[in-house]
Amino acid sequence: MSVKSIDFTDKNLERFFQKSDLLPAVVQEASTGQVLMVAYMNRESLKRTLQTGYTWFYSRSRKKLWNKGETSGNVQKIVKIYSDCDDDTLLILADQTGPACHTGAHSCFFQEIWRDDDGKCLDGIIPNGPEPEK
Amino acid sequence: MSVKSIDFTDKNLERFFQKSDLLPAVVQEASTGQVLMVAYMNRESLKRTLQTGYTWFYSRSRKKLWNKGETSGNVQKIVKIYSDCDDDTLLILADQTGPACHTGAHSCFFQEIWRDDDGKCLDGIIPNGPEPEK
Repeated sequence: MSVKSIDFTDKNLERFFQKSDLLPAVVQEASTGQVLMVAYMNRESLKRTLQTGYTWFYSRSRKKLWNKGETSGNVQKIVKIYSDCDDDTLLILADQTGPACHTGAHSCFFQEIWRDDDGKCLDGIIPNGPEPEK
Repeated sequence: MSVKSIDFTDKNLERFFQKSDLLPAVVQEASTGQVLMVAYMNRESLKRTLQTGYTWFYSRSRKKLWNKGETSGNVQKIVKIYSDCDDDTLLILADQTGPACHTGAHSCFFQEIWRDDDGKCLDGIIPNGPEPEK
Protein backbone atom coordinates (compact mmCIF):
# COMPACT_ATOMS: atom_id res chain seq x y z
CA MET A 1 0.00 0.00 0.00
CA SER A 2 1.30 3.43 -0.84
CA VAL A 3 -1.21 6.14 -0.10
CA LYS A 4 -1.04 9.90 -0.05
CA SER A 5 -2.78 10.10 3.27
CA ILE A 6 -4.81 7.59 5.16
CA ASP A 7 -7.87 8.33 7.25
CA PHE A 8 -6.50 8.97 10.72
CA THR A 9 -9.32 8.02 13.01
CA ASP A 10 -8.40 6.78 16.47
CA LYS A 11 -9.11 3.27 15.21
CA ASN A 12 -6.75 3.62 12.27
CA LEU A 13 -3.97 4.90 14.49
CA GLU A 14 -4.13 1.69 16.53
CA ARG A 15 -2.24 -0.11 13.77
CA PHE A 16 0.90 1.70 14.95
CA PHE A 17 0.56 0.66 18.58
CA GLN A 18 0.20 -3.12 18.32
CA LYS A 19 3.59 -3.89 19.90
CA SER A 20 3.98 -0.95 22.25
CA ASP A 21 2.26 2.17 23.54
CA LEU A 22 5.29 4.12 22.31
CA LEU A 23 6.11 4.32 18.62
CA PRO A 24 9.74 5.14 17.72
CA ALA A 25 10.11 7.83 15.05
CA VAL A 26 13.31 8.47 13.11
CA VAL A 27 13.59 12.10 12.01
CA GLN A 28 15.60 12.62 8.81
CA GLU A 29 16.40 16.03 7.32
CA ALA A 30 14.58 16.21 3.98
CA SER A 31 17.10 18.47 2.27
CA THR A 32 20.28 16.57 3.22
CA GLY A 33 19.24 13.05 4.21
CA GLN A 34 21.01 13.44 7.56
CA VAL A 35 19.42 11.42 10.35
CA LEU A 36 18.77 13.94 13.12
CA MET A 37 17.23 12.09 16.05
CA VAL A 38 14.99 9.28 17.25
CA ALA A 39 12.13 10.00 19.65
CA TYR A 40 8.91 8.32 20.72
CA MET A 41 5.25 9.06 20.07
CA ASN A 42 2.22 7.95 22.03
CA ARG A 43 -1.25 8.05 20.45
CA GLU A 44 -1.87 11.69 21.36
CA SER A 45 1.48 12.94 20.07
CA LEU A 46 1.05 11.04 16.80
CA LYS A 47 -2.40 12.58 16.38
CA ARG A 48 -1.09 16.10 17.00
CA THR A 49 1.81 15.50 14.61
CA LEU A 50 -0.53 14.45 11.81
CA GLN A 51 -2.91 17.31 12.52
CA THR A 52 -0.29 20.07 12.71
CA GLY A 53 2.47 18.92 10.34
CA TYR A 54 5.06 19.52 13.08
CA THR A 55 6.63 16.86 15.31
CA TRP A 56 5.14 16.07 18.70
CA PHE A 57 6.72 13.40 20.89
CA TYR A 58 6.22 11.81 24.26
CA SER A 59 9.04 12.29 26.74
CA ARG A 60 9.66 9.05 28.60
CA SER A 61 11.66 10.79 31.33
CA ARG A 62 9.30 13.74 31.85
CA LYS A 63 6.20 11.64 31.10
CA LYS A 64 4.56 14.37 29.04
CA LEU A 65 3.82 15.44 25.50
CA TRP A 66 6.56 17.45 23.91
CA ASN A 67 6.26 19.70 20.87
CA LYS A 68 9.79 19.65 19.40
CA GLY A 69 11.11 23.22 19.29
CA GLU A 70 8.27 24.70 21.34
CA THR A 71 10.69 26.47 23.69
CA SER A 72 13.87 26.61 21.55
CA GLY A 73 12.18 27.51 18.27
CA ASN A 74 14.03 24.62 16.62
CA VAL A 75 10.91 23.11 15.09
CA GLN A 76 10.60 20.30 12.58
CA LYS A 77 8.19 20.97 9.71
CA ILE A 78 7.23 17.65 8.24
CA VAL A 79 7.50 16.90 4.54
CA LYS A 80 6.60 13.21 4.49
CA ILE A 81 6.00 10.37 6.88
CA TYR A 82 6.64 6.74 6.09
CA SER A 83 5.63 3.73 8.16
CA ASP A 84 7.70 0.57 8.07
CA CYS A 85 6.70 -2.89 6.86
CA ASP A 86 5.20 -3.97 10.16
CA ASP A 87 3.88 -0.58 11.28
CA ASP A 88 6.00 -0.37 14.41
CA THR A 89 8.36 2.48 13.40
CA LEU A 90 7.95 5.80 11.58
CA LEU A 91 10.39 7.64 9.34
CA ILE A 92 9.73 11.38 9.29
CA LEU A 93 11.30 13.60 6.63
CA ALA A 94 11.36 17.14 7.92
CA ASP A 95 12.77 20.61 7.43
CA GLN A 96 14.74 21.31 10.61
CA THR A 97 14.99 24.86 11.94
CA GLY A 98 18.25 25.30 13.88
CA PRO A 99 19.97 22.37 15.56
CA ALA A 100 17.93 19.23 16.30
CA CYS A 101 19.99 18.22 19.34
CA HIS A 102 19.64 19.77 22.79
CA THR A 103 23.47 19.95 22.93
CA GLY A 104 23.52 22.41 20.05
CA ALA A 105 24.72 19.84 17.50
CA HIS A 106 22.77 19.73 14.26
CA SER A 107 22.11 16.00 14.66
CA CYS A 108 21.95 13.98 17.89
CA PHE A 109 24.21 11.39 16.20
CA PHE A 110 27.53 13.22 16.53
CA GLN A 111 29.52 10.60 18.44
CA GLU A 112 31.30 8.29 16.04
CA ILE A 113 31.99 5.06 17.92
CA TRP A 114 33.10 2.65 15.18
CA ARG A 115 34.52 2.86 11.67
CA ASP A 116 35.48 0.38 8.98
CA ASP A 117 38.71 1.73 7.59
CA ASP A 118 37.89 0.27 4.18
CA GLY A 119 34.40 1.76 4.21
CA LYS A 120 33.26 4.48 1.90
CA CYS A 121 30.77 7.10 3.03
CA LEU A 122 29.34 9.71 0.72
CA ASP A 123 30.29 13.25 1.64
CA GLY A 124 27.38 15.14 3.03
CA ILE A 125 25.28 12.20 4.14
CA ILE A 126 26.61 12.42 7.66
CA PRO A 127 28.48 15.70 7.83
CA ASN A 128 30.95 15.84 10.66
CA GLY A 129 29.07 18.67 12.28
CA PRO A 130 30.56 21.00 14.83
CA GLU A 131 30.94 19.54 18.26
CA PRO A 132 28.33 20.85 20.67
CA GLU A 133 29.43 23.38 23.25
CA LYS A 134 30.22 21.70 26.56
CA MET B 1 33.63 13.29 22.36
CA SER B 2 34.29 12.07 18.87
CA VAL B 3 36.49 9.01 18.70
CA LYS B 4 37.51 6.67 15.95
CA SER B 5 36.82 3.63 18.03
CA ILE B 6 36.31 3.21 21.74
CA ASP B 7 37.43 0.32 23.84
CA PHE B 8 34.51 -2.08 23.80
CA THR B 9 34.80 -3.97 27.01
CA ASP B 10 31.61 -5.32 28.56
CA LYS B 11 31.78 -2.41 30.99
CA ASN B 12 32.02 0.18 28.23
CA LEU B 13 29.06 -1.31 26.41
CA GLU B 14 26.89 -0.73 29.47
CA ARG B 15 26.67 2.95 28.58
CA PHE B 16 24.27 1.96 25.78
CA PHE B 17 21.93 -0.01 28.03
CA GLN B 18 21.13 2.47 30.79
CA LYS B 19 17.49 2.95 29.78
CA SER B 20 16.67 -0.45 28.33
CA ASP B 21 18.12 -3.89 27.67
CA LEU B 22 17.33 -3.34 24.00
CA LEU B 23 19.11 -0.61 22.03
CA PRO B 24 17.33 0.65 18.89
CA ALA B 25 19.59 0.92 15.83
CA VAL B 26 18.71 2.90 12.71
CA VAL B 27 20.37 1.43 9.62
CA GLN B 28 21.07 3.97 6.87
CA GLU B 29 22.51 3.07 3.48
CA ALA B 30 25.94 4.70 3.29
CA SER B 31 25.94 5.26 -0.47
CA THR B 32 22.47 6.83 -0.79
CA GLY B 33 21.45 8.06 2.66
CA GLN B 34 18.24 6.05 2.48
CA VAL B 35 17.01 4.87 5.87
CA LEU B 36 16.55 1.12 5.51
CA MET B 37 15.24 -0.22 8.81
CA VAL B 38 15.20 0.03 12.58
CA ALA B 39 15.98 -3.02 14.69
CA TYR B 40 17.08 -3.75 18.26
CA MET B 41 20.34 -4.93 19.77
CA ASN B 42 20.94 -6.57 23.11
CA ARG B 43 24.42 -6.63 24.64
CA GLU B 44 25.48 -9.79 22.82
CA SER B 45 24.28 -8.61 19.40
CA LEU B 46 26.01 -5.26 19.84
CA LYS B 47 29.23 -7.05 20.74
CA ARG B 48 29.03 -9.33 17.71
CA THR B 49 28.25 -6.34 15.49
CA LEU B 50 31.33 -4.46 16.68
CA GLN B 51 33.51 -7.56 16.41
CA THR B 52 32.41 -8.61 12.92
CA GLY B 53 31.52 -5.34 11.18
CA TYR B 54 28.17 -6.81 10.11
CA THR B 55 24.81 -6.16 11.79
CA TRP B 56 23.52 -8.50 14.47
CA PHE B 57 20.17 -7.80 16.14
CA TYR B 58 17.92 -9.32 18.76
CA SER B 59 14.52 -10.44 17.53
CA ARG B 60 11.86 -9.47 20.06
CA SER B 61 9.29 -11.85 18.56
CA ARG B 62 11.60 -14.85 18.17
CA LYS B 63 13.61 -13.98 21.29
CA LYS B 64 16.93 -14.80 19.69
CA LEU B 65 20.02 -13.26 18.14
CA TRP B 66 19.70 -12.57 14.46
CA ASN B 67 22.53 -11.97 11.99
CA LYS B 68 20.89 -9.79 9.34
CA GLY B 69 21.13 -11.57 5.98
CA GLU B 70 22.39 -14.85 7.43
CA THR B 71 19.78 -16.87 5.52
CA SER B 72 18.88 -14.44 2.70
CA GLY B 73 22.40 -13.27 1.95
CA ASN B 74 21.18 -9.67 2.25
CA VAL B 75 23.88 -8.64 4.68
CA GLN B 76 24.76 -5.18 5.97
CA LYS B 77 28.49 -4.39 5.95
CA ILE B 78 29.03 -1.53 8.35
CA VAL B 79 30.89 1.61 7.39
CA LYS B 80 30.40 3.74 10.51
CA ILE B 81 28.43 3.69 13.73
CA TYR B 82 27.29 6.79 15.58
CA SER B 83 25.76 6.93 19.03
CA ASP B 84 23.31 9.67 19.91
CA CYS B 85 23.68 12.42 22.51
CA ASP B 86 22.37 10.31 25.38
CA ASP B 87 23.70 6.94 24.21
CA ASP B 88 20.30 5.31 23.87
CA THR B 89 20.15 4.94 20.07
CA LEU B 90 22.64 3.96 17.36
CA LEU B 91 22.87 5.13 13.77
CA ILE B 92 24.58 2.55 11.55
CA LEU B 93 25.82 3.49 8.07
CA ALA B 94 26.11 0.34 6.04
CA ASP B 95 26.51 -1.09 2.56
CA GLN B 96 23.34 -3.13 2.00
CA THR B 97 23.47 -6.24 -0.18
CA GLY B 98 20.07 -6.84 -1.83
CA PRO B 99 16.87 -5.59 -0.23
CA ALA B 100 16.85 -4.75 3.48
CA CYS B 101 13.17 -5.58 4.00
CA HIS B 102 11.77 -9.09 4.37
CA THR B 103 9.00 -8.09 1.91
CA GLY B 104 11.56 -7.62 -0.86
CA ALA B 105 11.43 -3.81 -0.72
CA HIS B 106 14.82 -2.11 -0.59
CA SER B 107 13.84 -0.20 2.56
CA CYS B 108 11.33 -1.21 5.21
CA PHE B 109 9.93 2.35 5.00
CA PHE B 110 7.92 2.01 1.78
CA GLN B 111 4.49 3.00 3.07
CA GLU B 112 3.96 6.72 2.71
CA ILE B 113 1.28 7.69 5.21
CA TRP B 114 1.40 11.50 5.24
CA ARG B 115 2.64 14.26 2.94
CA ASP B 116 2.83 18.04 3.13
CA ASP B 117 1.79 19.18 -0.29
CA ASP B 118 4.03 22.22 0.02
CA GLY B 119 6.98 20.12 1.13
CA LYS B 120 10.10 19.63 -0.90
CA CYS B 121 12.02 16.38 -0.79
CA LEU B 122 15.29 15.86 -2.60
CA ASP B 123 15.18 13.24 -5.32
CA GLY B 124 17.01 10.12 -4.32
CA ILE B 125 16.91 10.60 -0.57
CA ILE B 126 13.86 8.41 -0.24
CA PRO B 127 13.40 6.77 -3.61
CA ASN B 128 9.90 5.49 -4.19
CA GLY B 129 11.12 1.93 -4.44
CA PRO B 130 9.17 -0.86 -6.06
CA GLU B 131 6.28 -2.17 -4.04
CA PRO B 132 7.05 -5.52 -2.47
CA GLU B 133 5.40 -8.60 -3.94
CA LYS B 134 2.26 -9.54 -2.03
